[in-house]
Amino acid sequence: MPIDQVETPALVIDLDAFEQNLQRMAEAVRASGVRLRPHAKTHKCPAIARRQVALGAVGVCCQKVSEAEAMVEGGIRDVLVSNEIVGPRKIARLAALAQEAKVSVCVDDAANVRELSAAAAARGVELGVLVEIDVGASRCGVAPGAPALDLARAVIEAPALEFAGLQAYQGRAQHIRAYEDRRQAIARAVEATAATVALLREHGIACETVAGAGTGTYAIEAASGVYNELQAGSYIFMDADYARNLKQDGGLNDEFQHSLFIYATVMSRPVAERAVLDAGLKAMSTDSGFPLVADFADALVARASDEHAVVETGPGAANLGIGTKLRLIPGHCDPTVNMYEWYIGVRRGVVEALWPISARGVGY
Amino acid sequence: MPIDQVETPALVIDLDAFEQNLQRMAEAVRASGVRLRPHAKTHKCPAIARRQVALGAVGVCCQKVSEAEAMVEGGIRDVLVSNEIVGPRKIARLAALAQEAKVSVCVDDAANVRELSAAAAARGVELGVLVEIDVGASRCGVAPGAPALDLARAVIEAPALEFAGLQAYQGRAQHIRAYEDRRQAIARAVEATAATVALLREHGIACETVAGAGTGTYAIEAASGVYNELQAGSYIFMDADYARNLKQDGGLNDEFQHSLFIYATVMSRPVAERAVLDAGLKAMSTDSGFPLVADFADALVARASDEHAVVETGPGAANLGIGTKLRLIPGHCDPTVNMYEWYIGVRRGVVEALWPISARGVGY
Repeated sequence: MPIDQVETPALVIDLDAFEQNLQRMAEAVRASGVRLRPHAKTHKCPAIARRQVALGAVGVCCQKVSEAEAMVEGGIRDVLVSNEIVGPRKIARLAALAQEAKVSVCVDDAANVRELSAAAAARGVELGVLVEIDVGASRCGVAPGAPALDLARAVIEAPALEFAGLQAYQGRAQHIRAYEDRRQAIARAVEATAATVALLREHGIACETVAGAGTGTYAIEAASGVYNELQAGSYIFMDADYARNLKQDGGLNDEFQHSLFIYATVMSRPVAERAVLDAGLKAMSTDSGFPLVADFADALVARASDEHAVVETGPGAANLGIGTKLRLIPGHCDPTVNMYEWYIGVRRGVVEALWPISARGVGY
Repeated sequence: MPIDQVETPALVIDLDAFEQNLQRMAEAVRASGVRLRPHAKTHKCPAIARRQVALGAVGVCCQKVSEAEAMVEGGIRDVLVSNEIVGPRKIARLAALAQEAKVSVCVDDAANVRELSAAAAARGVELGVLVEIDVGASRCGVAPGAPALDLARAVIEAPALEFAGLQAYQGRAQHIRAYEDRRQAIARAVEATAATVALLREHGIACETVAGAGTGTYAIEAASGVYNELQAGSYIFMDADYARNLKQDGGLNDEFQHSLFIYATVMSRPVAERAVLDAGLKAMSTDSGFPLVADFADALVARASDEHAVVETGPGAANLGIGTKLRLIPGHCDPTVNMYEWYIGVRRGVVEALWPISARGVGY
């Protein structure tokens, strides 16, 4: 089936670009001597996770129990929930999942450590545990240094938990535009993480895993000598926001190609300066700005409502008539993916694969 | 089951507030002598649509064929797709649906009129058709006046279509903050619509329906003497953005109460000034700003990432500990609803109803 037979709105993967992104990251990580545990919150799709593992990834990251369940169900044998899991039912499900696969989780609270330990013991399983430290993201995590040491001791003392190391993700650095600012933000994260690793070592505690990094900074963490497991996710798809990052030489960050597109149809063309698409706020996340129009020059998404994107058009988009189908580059890939049930994999204009986004939705 | 046993994130309806909103709108519309055809794109839920019809609504609006199919499947007998429908498969499904219920649709293009007519004739059905005019929203629709007359004639001449009147929704006026500015925007829409109705009448064409209005302006259209069918949707739930609108006296627009909430759990409390919730960009739309914290003073959603909302807390939220569950008021109700599978209806703290959001998702 040719792509222009696909009903819209739809989520389309350019398989050539996608596979090249997978290969490039696998090679970069192999060359740097660290591990890759890509984040499955980006794709929520076991078919993609299995391809990442086949290319050398040690497993995947997830952000919640329902994602981890979907990945284990889809054949992934090693899952890190790179997040805190709170509440008795969620914790019980996490422990149950550890009967089927290697499961690890992050902590930033001593009471949570005791609850995880009790649930794992009740199931007769062992959970791997990373202590999360706040290295500049100002989200979850204890402070680097002594608080991390205290929590690591609590994990080590808890039955049924295995202390696995540190989670040190600097999420806010990922979208800093200028390379030098990004590098400095990660340099500060590396310094805080290295000091914490050293403090733990002084107290006889080894960090098997020091984890973090995203698509915007992974090469910096990879070269740090401190991080040994990278958690980038968006590199497989890219998006308009990541593409705005600058490289060391000031050029646009084009190491990875856009491989993910919202496929949409022009459903109204009321005046020469405006085309209206059938993909709106319920088919695209706008938290990082509107999507870009991939296939037409002189066309800019200016507004969106529930089921419409309003595109301002210039002379270069004169042939954008009613019924024309076109591709948009999402502003932010992860929450856009979460809206869809399926990926439609396309190679050179022909549909080749349908992959269910089985971990999509407001799971918990 | 008490609400605090509900797993998070979840979408919760306060049934007392919700029912009062339904009643208030029904009474206001009855008093003004116009019809109400509430927009189902807000709720996507036949259980709610049936309650609206039971209180006097003539049917519902939908924004796409998949929503209309879900509404007809759920027992609604009269559906207006208040939007253009483009492409042979979508049009064929619209015509098929007209075998089961009264179905109307909007047009702003003569070729689209011919396609609708051919599809309806092929199915042996009649589609109602409203000509959409652009009364200031700058989205779809032909210009008021002569272009609308031309298109109305095309509809009248087309077999299997019944010209039903005008669609004249001023969507951009709904969220203008100051009442007087909002009133003036609708006054201009009323003027353009009235002139078009008069032009059609001069040419022997009657508009049975003159449709438009949303929650932000419905009372102005209701009193206009021109509009006779109102399409408000958000009044059932309200949201943070609509609540920022001002009334005629300058006070906040509190005619309808917040009845829709994102239920979330504090999953990290790393420092006194910050609480992190387990509901992020995949559980809330942020196109109209972040949600408000309903249950705690001194707590403000400052940032969101995929699975986290970061809440800045002051002394008034000192007791917001890990595991605490709380309600958020969505920034924009429609695209937030679209992320969830179920409403959890709660009355005075106890779960009373589960309603499937059967038209949710990126349907087409």
